[in-house]
Amino acid sequence: MNQQVLLHKRPQGNISSTDFSVLQTEMPTPADGEILIKNEYVSIDPAMRGWMNEGTTYVAGVALNTVMRAFAAGTVVQSNHPKFKIGDAVQGLTGAQEFAVSNGQNIDACNLALGPLSWHLGILGMPGMTAYFGLIERAKPQIGDTIFISGAAGIVGSTVGQIAKILGCRVIGSAGGEEKCQHLLNLGFDAVIDYKTENLTAALTRHAPDKLNIFFDNVGGEILDAALAHLAWGARVVICGAISQYNNQQFYGPKNYMKLVSARASMNGIIVFDFKERYPEAVVQLSEWLKHGQMQYKEHVVQGLDRFAEALNMLFTGANFGKLVLKV
Amino acid sequence: MNQQVLLHKRPQGNISSTDFSVLQTEMPTPADGEILIKNEYVSIDPAMRGWMNEGTTYVAGVALNTVMRAFAAGTVVQSNHPKFKIGDAVQGLTGAQEFAVSNGQNIDACNLALGPLSWHLGILGMPGMTAYFGLIERAKPQIGDTIFISGAAGIVGSTVGQIAKILGCRVIGSAGGEEKCQHLLNLGFDAVIDYKTENLTAALTRHAPDKLNIFFDNVGGEILDAALAHLAWGARVVICGAISQYNNQQFYGPKNYMKLVSARASMNGIIVFDFKERYPEAVVQLSEWLKHGQMQYKEHVVQGLDRFAEALNMLFTGANFGKLVLKV
Repeated sequence: MNQQVLLHKRPQGNISSTDFSVLQTEMPTPADGEILIKNEYVSIDPAMRGWMNEGTTYVAGVALNTVMRAFAAGTVVQSNHPKFKIGDAVQGLTGAQEFAVSNGQNIDACNLALGPLSWHLGILGMPGMTAYFGLIERAKPQIGDTIFISGAAGIVGSTVGQIAKILGCRVIGSAGGEEKCQHLLNLGFDAVIDYKTENLTAALTRHAPDKLNIFFDNVGGEILDAALAHLAWGARVVICGAISQYNNQQFYGPKNYMKLVSARASMNGIIVFDFKERYPEAVVQLSEWLKHGQMQYKEHVVQGLDRFAEALNMLFTGANFGKLVLKV
Repeated sequence: MNQQVLLHKRPQGNISSTDFSVLQTEMPTPADGEILIKNEYVSIDPAMRGWMNEGTTYVAGVALNTVMRAFAAGTVVQSNHPKFKIGDAVQGLTGAQEFAVSNGQNIDACNLALGPLSWHLGILGMPGMTAYFGLIERAKPQIGDTIFISGAAGIVGSTVGQIAKILGCRVIGSAGGEEKCQHLLNLGFDAVIDYKTENLTAALTRHAPDKLNIFFDNVGGEILDAALAHLAWGARVVICGAISQYNNQQFYGPKNYMKLVSARASMNGIIVFDFKERYPEAVVQLSEWLKHGQMQYKEHVVQGLDRFAEALNMLFTGANFGKLVLKV
């Protein structure tokens, strides 16, 4: 049998366990030109919250009572496809389920010499690519730039910060709680702001007296306003996410957006899929940095597909510490 | 005697006539290296509202009980400066006053062959330069682009729209009331939206079925959100002003800013002073277009420096129709 997580209803606000149904279904059979993948890890990502909504943003929302869209990594267990053989490690958008049939489109081989399977959902996967291309192609860091990263203890934020350090930036991150903040300092961040206890504006003024050349935003809300008010001349604001707002019925609009004008700054965003052709370059570079100890990577593994809703909710309460994956 | 408008107090919200005091003061005398200018026109611009606030944005706020900062155009009546002679037509930030002494810094000669004196405060002055460089250098229009301009009946908006038409764009503008909307159609706008009577989102959907390649914003508030929701792939949002918000204690933040991400769009701003070196190019080009009837220019002249507060307020109520200048 195949264990699957289906989107059962669309949440208004916070996610509840009844938004998903976990079912045992018939084992799927791959047709000609198809493969059967046994997923070992399912990635839990903030983007999933948007995928649960009706309508289309950069992709269409997941249809009700279909398998929840998810990146997953596993092993090919049957193959009727010339490009794949049994035992191949692969990852792709194969969904929150134990077994998936695929025609091989958008299924990528995982090179386990570069890192263990689950890493291909994290630092060597979509979030790592988001950090790499979001920073390098959208924020365009220069040596000596001061960068502020919100949600810096998350996989994207901590990867952005570590790459920025390697590239010669002064790196400031915000996170919730002493343990996460200490972790960021251990990763080499120059300064951290505990958003749960510190005044953002005062902390930014203290840690970035020459203001911010780059703001990389994973959080949105008031932290975005505080950062906008503190932009340096010619600053780049890269919007990656807005985890503080995804469960809100009404998005918080940044009241300080006119600071973009006076600071001669610009705001744009990162959609990782735009850089698909260049993933191999980033995967090799990130694995090199990891191998040489210039970067660290931390995972948070939750056991069992039936804990999907609980795990997804951890992203919004900040309960995870490290890249969140479900072990199937 | 010299008639001067001083900033008397800083408004909280709407401007009132008691925010300014109109005084008769001693006639100033130019020292060595200085000139005396008799102002004939004082420009009334939205930027003035920001200049009345405390603190510094792109320039410092006007100090209390000093002459209100203003662009003005007039004639040199005394000169102890080698660059200027009596009778020269000049314009610059000489303030809301009849007579001004200047050391000649940032005082520009007005070439009356290119247009009458008052035009050098409008289409051939700061607002015209804002439109020209904001559109060309910030929005980077391409032939066939659809551009939406808020506050399109204002001097900046109507100039942006007419230049965009010359450059081969499809031009949509919003304005308040039938008379202004009809005027925009007469100027060659492809479509207009009366924000006082029409639903913005419905109107944008009707007039821009392929969405917006450029949004040039003079207004802010809900119109910015409606435009963000309607951006085409790779759109450019140029923030020029936010006339709907300047009198508000709390700025309206655009709730739809994440549309920049999914649309692969970018947002930046225009500060005209950054293009000071290139003003001559723009003045010549704009006067050519005007001369050949490819552009039209409309002024709204209010008589008397003592009506300064009343005139400034017209910008916020939309009572002016054409570039607002005070005749001294």
